[in-house]
Amino acid sequence: MKELRRALSQPPRPGEALAGIEGPNLIEEALRARLGIETVFVSQDAERLLDGLALPQETEVLLVPRELLTSALTTEAPQPIAALVRQPDWIWRDLLEGFEGNADALIVVLAGLQDPGNVGTIVRSAEAFGATGIVSLPGTVSAWNPKAVRASAGSVFRVPLISASTDDCIQQLHESGVKLWTTAARDAKPAPSVNLTKPIAILIGNEGNGVSPELAAKADGALTIPCPGPVESLNAAVATSVLLYEAAQQRAAKGGTQ
Amino acid sequence: MKELRRALSQPPRPGEALAGIEGPNLIEEALRARLGIETVFVSQDAERLLDGLALPQETEVLLVPRELLTSALTTEAPQPIAALVRQPDWIWRDLLEGFEGNADALIVVLAGLQDPGNVGTIVRSAEAFGATGIVSLPGTVSAWNPKAVRASAGSVFRVPLISASTDDCIQQLHESGVKLWTTAARDAKPAPSVNLTKPIAILIGNEGNGVSPELAAKADGALTIPCPGPVESLNAAVATSVLLYEAAQQRAAKGGTQ
Repeated sequence: MKELRRALSQPPRPGEALAGIEGPNLIEEALRARLGIETVFVSQDAERLLDGLALPQETEVLLVPRELLTSALTTEAPQPIAALVRQPDWIWRDLLEGFEGNADALIVVLAGLQDPGNVGTIVRSAEAFGATGIVSLPGTVSAWNPKAVRASAGSVFRVPLISASTDDCIQQLHESGVKLWTTAARDAKPAPSVNLTKPIAILIGNEGNGVSPELAAKADGALTIPCPGPVESLNAAVATSVLLYEAAQQRAAKGGTQ
Repeated sequence: MKELRRALSQPPRPGEALAGIEGPNLIEEALRARLGIETVFVSQDAERLLDGLALPQETEVLLVPRELLTSALTTEAPQPIAALVRQPDWIWRDLLEGFEGNADALIVVLAGLQDPGNVGTIVRSAEAFGATGIVSLPGTVSAWNPKAVRASAGSVFRVPLISASTDDCIQQLHESGVKLWTTAARDAKPAPSVNLTKPIAILIGNEGNGVSPELAAKADGALTIPCPGPVESLNAAVATSVLLYEAAQQRAAKGGTQ
C-alpha cells in the first residue's frame, strides 16, 4: 500500500518505476494494452469488481479495507480498486520509426508543462493523430500523474513515451535527422506553409511562459498557428493538437507515410 | 459578500445575473473588455492591489477581512481580491453577423459539456480562431464558472455568448440560414472535405456521451475529424478547437470572409 500511495502522490517520470492507476476502466485499458500489472488493490466490499477483469493468474491481488484504499487515492470520488502497473519499455527507436518501424517521426517534446490535464490531453491527441511518440523534458509534470492518465483516456498506456535530458533529446533528434520546431505566437512560420510530412519534433513549452529562449535557440525553426481572432492565445494542449492535426492532414494528403 | 459567494459557487448561465471573478489579472481583463464592474471585494491587507487597477470612480469597493473573502473563493490558492461583474448583453445578431456585423457565422453550440476547463478552453479557442459566438444549451456547465473563466484566459469577457433552449437555438439557426453540423466519430463527413466557409454552427456534446441522438437528428449533417491513429477519441475542447482551426483555414484560403 505504501508503494501505491507513493506512486500516486509522486508519479514516476516516464520510464521509471511502477505507476499507480485508479478505477476498473483504466485497469481494463492497461490490460488491453498488455501492460504488466504488478499488484491490484481492491476494497474488501468490492471484490466482485475482479470478476469483470481478466487478470493474469500471476497478478498479486490484495484485499484492503475501503478507508485504507481511499486514503491512498487521488480522485475526488475514489473508486474501490487500484493497481500498480509496469510502464512499457519504450526506446528512442520506437519514437523515431513509429511502433511498427515504418512511420516518419512525428514527436512531441514537452518542455516544462505543469498542468497534468494538458499533458494527458496531449498524449490522447498524439495517439489519435498518429504521432510516433512523446519526449518529456525535465520540469514537465509526469504523464503518469493520475490526472494526466485520466485525461489521456488510456492513451498513456499505448503512446511511446520517454524521459530525456534536454541535451540528450536535442542530440538524438539531430543525429536521427529529425527537425525540431519550436512554437511561438509571433516571428514564426505559419504551420500550414511548412512541410510537416518530414520527420519532425514539435517543442511545447510551459503554459504560462512558453518555450524558454535558450531552448528555442536550439530548434531548427519556429512554427505558429494562424489565428484570425484578436487574441493569439491558445491552451497548450489545444495548440499541440492543432499542430498534430495539421501534420496528420499533410501526411494524409501526401499519402502512404502513415 | 453573500452575492459574491453565490455567484462563484452557483455561476449564472450566460446572460443571467452578475458573475463573480477572482484575482487582479481577471479583473484587469474585465476592465479592458469594458465590462461593468458592480462591486470589488478586496482583503483589508491587500488594499494596495487597487492602485494597479483603473477602476471607474462609481465602482463600489468593499474592504473585507481576508478570511471572509477567502471563504467565498473557489481557487486552491485564493487571491485577496474578487469582483462582481455585469455580463455583456449579447444578442443573437452578434453571433450571426460577428461583432462588427461583417462575418459569416461560425458558432459553437455547447450541448451538455460538464467540464468547466473544457468550456473555458473552447471559449478561448473560439476567440483565437475568429468564431462569431457560442450558444450554451441547457445542461452545459456555465462559461461563468470560475474554472471556466480562468481556462478561457479572459476570452469569456469578449466572445459573444448566449444561453438558449434547444428548440430556440435550432429555430434561430434555421431561420438565419446557418447550417448546423453535429460531430461524431463515425458515419460523418471528414471536416476538410466539407465547405466550412458558409455560415455554420458546430454542435459539441457531453464529454462522455457526445451529442444525443435526438439532438443530432436535428442537425443538417455530421462532421468528423480524420484521425490516422488507432483511436478516434479526442478531448471535447480539442475536437472543437481543431474544427474551428479547419474552418478558419478554409476561410483564410477563400479570403475576405473574416
